Order: sequence, then C-alpha cells, then structure tokens
Amino acid sequence: MAEGELQRVVGDNLRRYRQGKGWSQEEFAHELGVHRTYMGSLERGERNLSLRSVERLAASLGMEPLELLSERP
Amino acid sequence: MAEGELQRVVGDNLRRYRQGKGWSQEEFAHELGVHRTYMGSLERGERNLSLRSVERLAASLGMEPLELLSERP
Repeated sequence: MAEGELQRVVGDNLRRYRQGKGWSQEEFAHELGVHRTYMGSLERGERNLSLRSVERLAASLGMEPLELLSERP
Repeated sequence: MAEGELQRVVGDNLRRYRQGKGWSQEEFAHELGVHRTYMGSLERGERNLSLRSVERLAASLGMEPLELLSERP
C-alpha cells in the first residue's frame, strides 16, 4: 500500500457517505462542523489525518473508524 | 470505539510484533530508525499517529496498514 493511500480511502468513503445522503459538500461540512474547503480537501484525500481525527469523523457519522479506513469495492 | 483506541491498538500490535521477534524495545527502535523512548510511547499507545506514519511503520514491518490498525483477539 503506497503512502497516502489511507487518506485517499477515507476521502472516497466520506464522498460515498455524503452522496448516499444526497448532501452537497457544504451541507456535509455543516453536518460535521468543518469548513467547506476543508471538507473538499478531505474528500480529495489531501489530508494526512491523525488517528484521533479519523475516530472523531467516524463517530460523527456513526461509523467504526476501520469502516472509514477500509477500501470499498 | 472511544477516541484514542486506534493508537492503543497500533501499540499493542507493535508490541506483539516485537515480542514475536524476541527483540528489546531498543533493538526494535533501531530496526525502525526511531528513538528508544519514542518506541516505548508508541507501544503504550500514547502517540496520535498520522495515517502516513502508520503507513510508513507498516511498510517497514512488511505489513498492511490495516493489519496494524486492527485489534487482534
């Protein structure tokens, strides 16, 4: 697994979650209490998140952290 | 999953790997190219690692990052 892969997977899973809800990035950013531009960079996998940030994101989505970190087919 | 759980799991898995090799923390720190005291804090789950740090650690142990992040029975 190349370096930077985990943050890309988290971004993909966040985007999948958002689209499943039919939310815009703005609505999703509001839901998570983060800035819209930060939301975009998260989804694009540009953020080298800490483990606790992943845990907080997962908790606010009602997911387990490993779900957010695991690639979906 | 409580916040800080992932770093605890990583610490436990690092310790299990080290003990499997019969290494001291000092030998393991040398193997990973980190300071001995940092090694100890990693194993105790005191470090809120970034995703890329987890990827680098896993790569140097020849493991997948998710293996390092997954609780073992």
